[in-house]
Amino acid sequence: MRILGVDPGIAIVGFGLIEACAGQAQMLSYGAITTEAGLPLSKRLWRIGNDMEELIARCKPDVIAIEELFFNNNITTGIAVAHGRGVLLYSAEKCGIPLFEYTPSQVKQAVVGYGKAEKRQVMDMTKRLLKLSAVPKPDDAADALAIALCHARSATSLLQRANLEAKQTI
Amino acid sequence: MRILGVDPGIAIVGFGLIEACAGQAQMLSYGAITTEAGLPLSKRLWRIGNDMEELIARCKPDVIAIEELFFNNNITTGIAVAHGRGVLLYSAEKCGIPLFEYTPSQVKQAVVGYGKAEKRQVMDMTKRLLKLSAVPKPDDAADALAIALCHARSATSLLQRANLEAKQTI
Repeated sequence: MRILGVDPGIAIVGFGLIEACAGQAQMLSYGAITTEAGLPLSKRLWRIGNDMEELIARCKPDVIAIEELFFNNNITTGIAVAHGRGVLLYSAEKCGIPLFEYTPSQVKQAVVGYGKAEKRQVMDMTKRLLKLSAVPKPDDAADALAIALCHARSATSLLQRANLEAKQTI
Repeated sequence: MRILGVDPGIAIVGFGLIEACAGQAQMLSYGAITTEAGLPLSKRLWRIGNDMEELIARCKPDVIAIEELFFNNNITTGIAVAHGRGVLLYSAEKCGIPLFEYTPSQVKQAVVGYGKAEKRQVMDMTKRLLKLSAVPKPDDAADALAIALCHARSATSLLQRANLEAKQTI
């Protein structure tokens, strides 16, 4: 299963593509869609939507996993990110790719095993689970890979549970 | 000049099309894009983007005027509306229509002449300025017409001022 993880943003949208199979995951590619701070918001959003559609066409994911919005103290940034996230969800839907949303603590729980893990721990575990030589840069791309891993591990858990229940029923 | 006013939302996106010329404005059409509450957010956003592009193709506006996000106490609703507004800005940009953004108080100032006017006063003035027999329904469509009027009156003021300055220079 090809999973495209997406870390929403307005200046930087991180993405990470992994292939997940039978509890194992392999990194295929990662990177970021970036927009210039000086551009009007509508032009930044157009760039995000356009690049997201190109990315989906190129990566051909089976599913997209995207992080839910974590609202910190900066409401202005939060609103801008929500604008960008809206366009990302729209693009995924337009391309007909099944979409799964995870909260930051679900990602931490799935990757590190602890919902309140530090960002650094999530990055180190992402690197280890994907057998990478270094933590991917930018941070947004590493986050996106963690989100993809979260889906892989959640989906794997669900599948394992389903198989177990099927065996118990037989 | 054909102005498409847009009142952003996630359940209801109001729109109002006016023709503005030499300080006079005429209502051409109004209505709302609606999405069902039970649908996943991504599907609601897809509907909004899709219907907005169809609306632009049908209305052929010269400009789009959209309200800036007014954040009230309900942060959850505000985030959902920001997602929807992101898709609306993206659609306008994709269609290549010049976009203008106004705050609620700018709309009140331009339509009623007082930035802290009540909603009812804005609606009554919108009805009067557009020579309508009743306040349009839903409220979101009336708001959208007010936003279009705001742009007409702001653009008119700017033009009048520019003409005046040109005469003074001659």
